[in-house]
Amino acid sequence: MKPACLSHVGADGAVRMVDVGDKQVTARVASAEGFVRISSALERAIRENSVKKGSVLEVSRLAGILAAKRTDELIPLCHSLPLDAIDVTAALEPREDGARVHVTATVRTQSRTGVEMEALTAVTVACLTVIDMGKAIDKAMVIDGVRVTEKRGGRSGDRCATREEGR
Amino acid sequence: MKPACLSHVGADGAVRMVDVGDKQVTARVASAEGFVRISSALERAIRENSVKKGSVLEVSRLAGILAAKRTDELIPLCHSLPLDAIDVTAALEPREDGARVHVTATVRTQSRTGVEMEALTAVTVACLTVIDMGKAIDKAMVIDGVRVTEKRGGRSGDRCATREEGR
Amino acid sequence: MKPACLSHVGADGAVRMVDVGDKQVTARVASAEGFVRISSALERAIRENSVKKGSVLEVSRLAGILAAKRTDELIPLCHSLPLDAIDVTAALEPREDGARVHVTATVRTQSRTGVEMEALTAVTVACLTVIDMGKAIDKAMVIDGVRVTEKRGGRSGDRCATREEGR
Amino acid sequence: MKPACLSHVGADGAVRMVDVGDKQVTARVASAEGFVRISSALERAIRENSVKKGSVLEVSRLAGILAAKRTDELIPLCHSLPLDAIDVTAALEPREDGARVHVTATVRTQSRTGVEMEALTAVTVACLTVIDMGKAIDKAMVIDGVRVTEKRGGRSGDRCATREEGR
Amino acid sequence: MKPACLSHVGADGAVRMVDVGDKQVTARVASAEGFVRISSALERAIRENSVKKGSVLEVSRLAGILAAKRTDELIPLCHSLPLDAIDVTAALEPREDGARVHVTATVRTQSRTGVEMEALTAVTVACLTVIDMGKAIDKAMVIDGVRVTEKRGGRSGDRCATREEGR
Amino acid sequence: MKPACLSHVGADGAVRMVDVGDKQVTARVASAEGFVRISSALERAIRENSVKKGSVLEVSRLAGILAAKRTDELIPLCHSLPLDAIDVTAALEPREDGARVHVTATVRTQSRTGVEMEALTAVTVACLTVIDMGKAIDKAMVIDGVRVTEKRGGRSGDRCATREEGR
Repeated sequence: MKPACLSHVGADGAVRMVDVGDKQVTARVASAEGFVRISSALERAIRENSVKKGSVLEVSRLAGILAAKRTDELIPLCHSLPLDAIDVTAALEPREDGARVHVTATVRTQSRTGVEMEALTAVTVACLTVIDMGKAIDKAMVIDGVRVTEKRGGRSGDRCATREEGR
Repeated sequence: MKPACLSHVGADGAVRMVDVGDKQVTARVASAEGFVRISSALERAIRENSVKKGSVLEVSRLAGILAAKRTDELIPLCHSLPLDAIDVTAALEPREDGARVHVTATVRTQSRTGVEMEALTAVTVACLTVIDMGKAIDKAMVIDGVRVTEKRGGRSGDRCATREEGR
Repeated sequence: MKPACLSHVGADGAVRMVDVGDKQVTARVASAEGFVRISSALERAIRENSVKKGSVLEVSRLAGILAAKRTDELIPLCHSLPLDAIDVTAALEPREDGARVHVTATVRTQSRTGVEMEALTAVTVACLTVIDMGKAIDKAMVIDGVRVTEKRGGRSGDRCATREEGR
Repeated sequence: MKPACLSHVGADGAVRMVDVGDKQVTARVASAEGFVRISSALERAIRENSVKKGSVLEVSRLAGILAAKRTDELIPLCHSLPLDAIDVTAALEPREDGARVHVTATVRTQSRTGVEMEALTAVTVACLTVIDMGKAIDKAMVIDGVRVTEKRGGRSGDRCATREEGR
Repeated sequence: MKPACLSHVGADGAVRMVDVGDKQVTARVASAEGFVRISSALERAIRENSVKKGSVLEVSRLAGILAAKRTDELIPLCHSLPLDAIDVTAALEPREDGARVHVTATVRTQSRTGVEMEALTAVTVACLTVIDMGKAIDKAMVIDGVRVTEKRGGRSGDRCATREEGR
Repeated sequence: MKPACLSHVGADGAVRMVDVGDKQVTARVASAEGFVRISSALERAIRENSVKKGSVLEVSRLAGILAAKRTDELIPLCHSLPLDAIDVTAALEPREDGARVHVTATVRTQSRTGVEMEALTAVTVACLTVIDMGKAIDKAMVIDGVRVTEKRGGRSGDRCATREEGR
């Protein structure tokens, strides 16, 4: 049985940037989400400010958009991709066991590889910005549940096995 | 009762970078941690590669170190701080309900404000790099539990109330 | 009557990066210009140095070229575009009421959206560099008249109304 | 009579970064302003959106803050300075001959050289962002009147003559 | 006889970014190499660490990969190109007159101009990283022999004469 | 006998950023040099252009200055240091066996660690820029002899042994 293999690690064990030169340019989209668990006091402060000018959530969304464009600088083996659209949302969700900020990101491209890392980067940097802006009020925030929620376009052929067979 | 206030939002509701000019330059340290929940198959692949060259964990650690130095570019209202040291660890933790990668970061500075955002940025970018390098094998990874674990130095005076009174 | 709408603001009032995925890749060019009003003393200093090595104007041109390539990092909702050519000029213009530096930029691309922001960014950063290099002599410089002078390629279809109708 | 000299140009005519090693670390502040002339239609669109969420002006302010932190990357001979505070305002000003957005920036540091370039960079990038976000409605915007409005701290000794004598 | 001409210098002597708009998008590849001459003591330290975790060479390779993606920010007149693959190797070569690290880089793209600068940038930054990580042991390292070893794809038509005739 | 040790590799073999928190802030300076071997045809082209506007050498110098300021982004384990001065020279040196460009850089800081990497980065990026601007004429350029020529300030205590003993 062929074991699972790490696509960024070559036969010699050295890291490498995966060659996407043979892949097709197709429309691709990826979405991701994440959460920042916050105190009720912070939730109230964000909401009241939000009623006025919405800044914590808006600044966080914007930080996420900007970060998505720089994913290739942050994640060492990511390709630089031309992004057609970046959409980041950030919403307060009150819950029984404390509130949270729900962040989502959807990124679109027409290129040779997918954009899930761009969506994840947008989400995590937006979450970090929530923490930065709220940390004077709530010192116990936690980022949770950051994951890819959807990925479309391209062959689902980023799988290592498929790549092996394709040679 | 004075309500909690957002330190990055001025009296007029507009976002601003907090003025740290009156704060003392002191030695400050912050630590953070986070987890990437991974499949057993990925855990095995990382460990086997790790025995040889350790690359997934090492690349992730390095990505975290590099990201910490660029926190001010990613988090809109963060100050640019001279970092004395950045230490990032990444370790596999097998568990009954699936494995995880445990990432920690400790950042030190001598400046006018704390470095918890730098530690959190290091952790999250290291976690994202684990996902990038492992996603050909495991498409269901989740980042969880990203939080500040320790903050020392400076007055614990980043609190808004204290700042108000200090005027 | 449908009111004018801001293309970067969604139905919910939240900022977003405009989706250009349905637009055609076409050759596009944009030009912009701007001026730095300078004292006669500075004009003389620039000209004399220029006779020798041309540095103030050349450094400013170069700063403009470099900045155009980073427009997407500076302007939050700009797309990252592959630029085919960037041409920046900077020339002294003596006038009766004091001299000025006239900066122009022309940027070319083949992509899904226009490059006027790249041309404007090149012009403004070149103007800022003139100020930086001349400020020891002239502390009263002013940047004026920064605007797009030409935009060709693409449908002139960046207009919001058209986009609405296209849905 | 000794002629005015360009501080960034050495005796050999070659550009250089001015050596600030002998200057004192002192508190320094600089302010700058600039304007974007806009159409009445755009003014209305910004104001109505602003009533809801304030985004054009808020995004522009934020872009200015972020840009100030990267001044040293944009302006070739600028030093990298630790900024204590960055404050950017952006306000609509209706006028008889058409509206305008008035942008101001104030930057504070404790370092060896002044921060007027940081303030100017914040202002110009905020102005560019207004254009980017409004250009679907108004294609004739112009940036005007970008200048330093105040500079305090340090000897007013950035003047070339003084530096020469100091040797 | 027409003299050789500098492609980045216009008829007026001013630097410019070469317009690649008329060139074809074709698959292009470039390779480069370079060496760091190191002491035997450093060679031993790298090798022993390498047996364990390979870090000096791995960190250097990674630094080279990351730098290749930012070539357009470092080399003023380079275009921003979408890179399909970046492969960097770094190997110890013991020799009679002292050891050396041999670094190679191969970069692939499908675009309008070649990627030899990207390959060279990867090599030089990897070499610099070897020096940074080894300098506590060996203060006399030298980088030598950095050059393009292969360039394929595109017309070999980057030559100035051809470009002139093409007009 | 204690073997030489790599300062960036911890007891566990993992890379880390050296902690400079206990080192003194002192004035430090480092110089580096490097060469680009070029053809006589290119030497002539650079010189003739240089007589007019000096651009190849001036653009290269400027690229070196800009790169020095970003050393911490390029070299993974370098600290971000405030640079007081960056001086880069680039001169043509005709020789019997073909010409070369001689690049030097001197960097000054007042901080806790040295700036030799900044000087080396300035030199190499200036050399790369010479290649980029001359490659249409000379496809066989080689970068040689890149090394630190002087380092002053700080204890010469970056040596690993000293650090070990200091514990």
